[in-house]
Amino acid sequence: MKLFYGPGTCALASHIALQEAGAEFTAIRVDFSRNEQRQPDYLQVNPKGRVPALVTDRGVLTENVAILAFVAQRYPAANLAPLGDPFAFAQVQAFNSYLASTVHVAHAHGRRGYRWADDQSSFDDMKRKLPETMGACFDLVERAMFKGPWVMGEAYTICDPYLFTIAEWLEGDGVDPARFPKVHDHRTRMYERAAVKRALATEGRG
Amino acid sequence: MKLFYGPGTCALASHIALQEAGAEFTAIRVDFSRNEQRQPDYLQVNPKGRVPALVTDRGVLTENVAILAFVAQRYPAANLAPLGDPFAFAQVQAFNSYLASTVHVAHAHGRRGYRWADDQSSFDDMKRKLPETMGACFDLVERAMFKGPWVMGEAYTICDPYLFTIAEWLEGDGVDPARFPKVHDHRTRMYERAAVKRALATEGRG
Repeated sequence: MKLFYGPGTCALASHIALQEAGAEFTAIRVDFSRNEQRQPDYLQVNPKGRVPALVTDRGVLTENVAILAFVAQRYPAANLAPLGDPFAFAQVQAFNSYLASTVHVAHAHGRRGYRWADDQSSFDDMKRKLPETMGACFDLVERAMFKGPWVMGEAYTICDPYLFTIAEWLEGDGVDPARFPKVHDHRTRMYERAAVKRALATEGRG
Repeated sequence: MKLFYGPGTCALASHIALQEAGAEFTAIRVDFSRNEQRQPDYLQVNPKGRVPALVTDRGVLTENVAILAFVAQRYPAANLAPLGDPFAFAQVQAFNSYLASTVHVAHAHGRRGYRWADDQSSFDDMKRKLPETMGACFDLVERAMFKGPWVMGEAYTICDPYLFTIAEWLEGDGVDPARFPKVHDHRTRMYERAAVKRALATEGRG
């Protein structure tokens, strides 16, 4: 398999999960500074022009929520999700879907406001509001969603690399991570995991 | 089970899926015109203050992507997803995650710009751009994602009610649905399904 990623992007979540699963794959860097994600070669892989994209022998998968569930189901021995329990599995998917459709989206307004507006004044407005929106998201995660010690409780799941990936953006978004002690402690423990170290090293952050 | 929904919201996707599955549930209307989704009673059900929320005997599930997968897994006889095939299941989840985190998000900028900005000029800017962003999303669905006759091909899945639900917003977002013949034909065929008729009737649109 091949995982297309950009350093500092949300693709890190899928990258870590593949490492946790012991999957055989090659990580291929997409250079966002040269806009490679919008070039014809990459658009043939993923017409959305986004990362992550996971190339398998069956075809290409996109979207972290889907790739993470795929890794958990494809490598059941890694115990990355409660596969035999539809309710518990849905809780995992609900957490990850919240990260994808609310938290990541809030973050994107800091730098990619052009997706939804045209005027510089709108981009400035969005950027000003970013600490408030990201802070509100992580307040909800800390207060109402995070079970501890891992996101879903005693068992490490595909929620953990995704939360870690997005929590790493807090400082850059003007939010003090110390406001969220459980999430902050989680992040510290994630750095100690071998799979996280391998993924970060591959992405040039070792 | 109880499904909390608001008429005209994305909760219709989960509502239709529950009808398709033959699930026993009660649909409970949340009155957005009275801001009920932000009142303490509802925030106890879903601290996010959003719909859908599905109350089960195990607890509450939120997020369409998760509820739809739950319905498919909990009612396997309804054949609403390729449950035994991790790759095919991930394709279903990828499609639904795109709807949740890109298409629904694009739509939300038309009326709920206050989530990401503060100034009226930004809201006006977002609203102006809405036909372009929603049009681009549906162009990609039509051109690169929709297999036909159903979203995933020959088999009706949990992708179909979700696409139908969001495609119903096109006119209101200033996009001519006739630009997307496959999606438009899909929507016409969806209206003919008994489960869709029942869900729409329950929501007062029968």
